[in-house]
Amino acid sequence: MRTYKLTVSYDGTRYQGWQKQKNTDKTIQAIVENALGKTAGYPVEIYGSGRTDAGVHAKGQTLSCSLRGKIREETFQEVINSLLPEDIRVIRTELVKNGFHARYSASGKCYEYHIDTRQKQDVFERRYSYHFPYKVDKKKMEEAARILIGTHDFAAFTDKKEEKSTIRSIYDIMIAGQDGKIQITYRGNGFLYHMVRILTGTLLEVGMGKLTTEEIAGALVTGERKKAGFMAPAKGLFLKEVYY
Amino acid sequence: MRTYKLTVSYDGTRYQGWQKQKNTDKTIQAIVENALGKTAGYPVEIYGSGRTDAGVHAKGQTLSCSLRGKIREETFQEVINSLLPEDIRVIRTELVKNGFHARYSASGKCYEYHIDTRQKQDVFERRYSYHFPYKVDKKKMEEAARILIGTHDFAAFTDKKEEKSTIRSIYDIMIAGQDGKIQITYRGNGFLYHMVRILTGTLLEVGMGKLTTEEIAGALVTGERKKAGFMAPAKGLFLKEVYY
Repeated sequence: MRTYKLTVSYDGTRYQGWQKQKNTDKTIQAIVENALGKTAGYPVEIYGSGRTDAGVHAKGQTLSCSLRGKIREETFQEVINSLLPEDIRVIRTELVKNGFHARYSASGKCYEYHIDTRQKQDVFERRYSYHFPYKVDKKKMEEAARILIGTHDFAAFTDKKEEKSTIRSIYDIMIAGQDGKIQITYRGNGFLYHMVRILTGTLLEVGMGKLTTEEIAGALVTGERKKAGFMAPAKGLFLKEVYY
Repeated sequence: MRTYKLTVSYDGTRYQGWQKQKNTDKTIQAIVENALGKTAGYPVEIYGSGRTDAGVHAKGQTLSCSLRGKIREETFQEVINSLLPEDIRVIRTELVKNGFHARYSASGKCYEYHIDTRQKQDVFERRYSYHFPYKVDKKKMEEAARILIGTHDFAAFTDKKEEKSTIRSIYDIMIAGQDGKIQITYRGNGFLYHMVRILTGTLLEVGMGKLTTEEIAGALVTGERKKAGFMAPAKGLFLKEVYY
């Protein structure tokens, strides 16, 4: 058996998220696993770097799988793409060391969140950005971001408490903006359930003057979900890259 | 009666083009006319600046209509947008002089054509650009564009010969490109049926070295459709602006 790493890009609009589910076949994992099995000629199990929620997009989700022997990457990728719907594409296929696991071998991730603050929603952005037609102060957001960067207990920034630990490290939060569009890029060693979307809602509330940087610090210290901001919707979020 | 000019943006992917048809209600005109009638409280006829083909997008299509008296533009626009599907938006509503007609009063138009020449199609560009994974020489395209600019008989660059005259003026063709994406902007006093898409296919064939600038000149002189290039697909085309 040989281990392969595939990088996958998808438009999450039509799907119920990454993770396979019993009640629906509209999940990225089920669709990719099915196409991969057809391409290989035998059932193949795939392991994603992590789940993405319903409606979340990916520019570079990764998965690992075991195949019976060496493949010709280019041809293999062309075949699997011909079997996939046009909103899911395998963009890279690599032979990796045995033992590689898309989730457990990952050292970090990069997410992008797209916001459109223009008064009227742009029809061409509607699937790929959150329409938030309010004035936001980018400087205040950057100030709050500096508090969030680093190793903290992010318990206030997640909706699920089953994780063993809610401590994570955020390496960097970059806020870029022009023509009323804002793009927030998050890099870290890992992110909790809904964490990037709650961080984004929190930064937007800071930008509007509804939350202060002191309150953000308070949310970090107390771990109380209600002290952080709202959860921004799925459609503005992109899993950009998984680091190994 | 008062005359209004509305500017409309739409994602053409799901529609059978602008023009109302008997066999389908999936046309922009029918949908906007319907929403406008509901907003006004009585049937309203609308006149577009021109048709757009099935699958073609618009950032700034215009239409004129007559309403029984003055309206509050902002409120009117909010109501009509609440009745429209999210891929069609009225982005501007203006009271104009009586006698104004979106088509007959227009002095020119601007179209954009988006091409993605990267080897793999980007899932987020798939609805809004033509995937053309070939090496094209931008300089050659610019050379050919210079021949096309000006007042010419564009009979070779249309698929319908019923027009009274096939003479049109192209004011400008701008070719911008970065990261494997190419954007061609056309400005002119008017464009024939399929003309922008055939101009684009022609420029791409020049860029690939399949057609020469001399052959383009020959197409202009002879008016023979077969001497021009192929017709690029609808999904890369955007009606950007209508000039008055």
